[in-house]
Amino acid sequence: MIHRLTVVGLGLLGGSAAIAARKRGLAREIVAVGRRAERMAPALADGVVDRVTTDIGEGLRDADFVLLATPVTAIEALLPEVWRVTRADAVVSDVGSTKRAIVSAAERLARSRALAFVGGHPMAGSEQSGYAAARADLFAGTTVILTPTELTDRLAVKRVSEFWEALGSRVVTLDPDVHDRVVAAVSHLPHLVAFALVDAAVRLDPGALGFAGRGFADTTRIAASDPGVWRDIFLANREALAETLATFRLALEDLERLVA
Amino acid sequence: MIHRLTVVGLGLLGGSAAIAARKRGLAREIVAVGRRAERMAPALADGVVDRVTTDIGEGLRDADFVLLATPVTAIEALLPEVWRVTRADAVVSDVGSTKRAIVSAAERLARSRALAFVGGHPMAGSEQSGYAAARADLFAGTTVILTPTELTDRLAVKRVSEFWEALGSRVVTLDPDVHDRVVAAVSHLPHLVAFALVDAAVRLDPGALGFAGRGFADTTRIAASDPGVWRDIFLANREALAETLATFRLALEDLERLVA
Repeated sequence: MIHRLTVVGLGLLGGSAAIAARKRGLAREIVAVGRRAERMAPALADGVVDRVTTDIGEGLRDADFVLLATPVTAIEALLPEVWRVTRADAVVSDVGSTKRAIVSAAERLARSRALAFVGGHPMAGSEQSGYAAARADLFAGTTVILTPTELTDRLAVKRVSEFWEALGSRVVTLDPDVHDRVVAAVSHLPHLVAFALVDAAVRLDPGALGFAGRGFADTTRIAASDPGVWRDIFLANREALAETLATFRLALEDLERLVA
Repeated sequence: MIHRLTVVGLGLLGGSAAIAARKRGLAREIVAVGRRAERMAPALADGVVDRVTTDIGEGLRDADFVLLATPVTAIEALLPEVWRVTRADAVVSDVGSTKRAIVSAAERLARSRALAFVGGHPMAGSEQSGYAAARADLFAGTTVILTPTELTDRLAVKRVSEFWEALGSRVVTLDPDVHDRVVAAVSHLPHLVAFALVDAAVRLDPGALGFAGRGFADTTRIAASDPGVWRDIFLANREALAETLATFRLALEDLERLVA
């Protein structure tokens, strides 16, 4: 049982985690931290969270379980403040789509003050974004990748695993670098390609989209994803993404050669 | 009302057209032509077709509406035989994914013997194939592109339009060349890219697919399509496909440059 769960960033992922945690009674109290109070008002109104604040220090105070669910570059930027104000016995995790940079930043901070951080990445999402798109079953049946290293507190890994398992997810662990390469291949590259497919179709013939069927719709569904979120993800994982792009180009060239 | 509808190729598209035509009572008699009688036995058993034959001459005899629904390169190869045996007052159409080559071949044949041919392409399909995947509502709510030219019989265009509209489709007409460019952009390129995405993910890490979420699944669903069918489509539309691939590459390079 979590006493105070603080979710920083009440968007699609953070909002869905709060809704599911409330529904399953995982935490006595749930606090949301965000940049704009009015965006969090619906969660307060429907009883998903008990308190909202725009002050991260206030939001993290006395939390024993912290979930960082902002866009990925903001997570890394938040860590020093998290380290300054979070209780020493708290467990901190995140939902960022890239893990090496965040885990390394957390381990640097942990050298001066011990605090249990476990990198996490639920392989769930939607082309929709924001709290309005959040739902209790977003994580049900999905995989959550945790990225502990040899420095990570084992009990914290257990607590974070239990949190996601209680939400219906299957938890697996990967090395942060392996994680970043794997998600570059199965998530970041497909998003980049979907954006480029829509762009190419419009460049070729602005009217072409009117003839698109279900194949095009499914293949490019994720191109409707939040561009700001994905800019951040691409930048945060640019090295692994460049490697996957090179491999994708080779695969495409092989097909092109066969067709020619 | 069609007296005898002959469907050549009782796969996903031909089978779905036969099922829907039977269900809506569009034809008094439905005949299927295929290479293997045993593959067509289920359609005979469930009353979707009245007769099956492996002899195309026998199948086309006395048909007043012919739908060619084999893989795209086979359609072009079938046309001389269609011209030899089909009744002079019949309407012939097809479901091939590329149109310029088929329409040109039909117009060459029509110089020596008049026969009404209307190029057609339903923008419907599935990653599944064969009669087992066929269903009555495959064309409901989809777009069917017809590609008449200045040589095409107007009444035949009307009859083919009415056939698809009776199956719940919206019919639009396009020039055959414009059609081939449009479908290269919204169908053929996405298929080629989906094949390459799966290939790239496996090359990068054979275990990566185990971490794929809904985004990857949707983006690459069409990569499970019949490889033989798509080899034929890519080859039949190789010029327009090369043009779309060049544009796609530019779109991808623009994104790559921004990330770098």
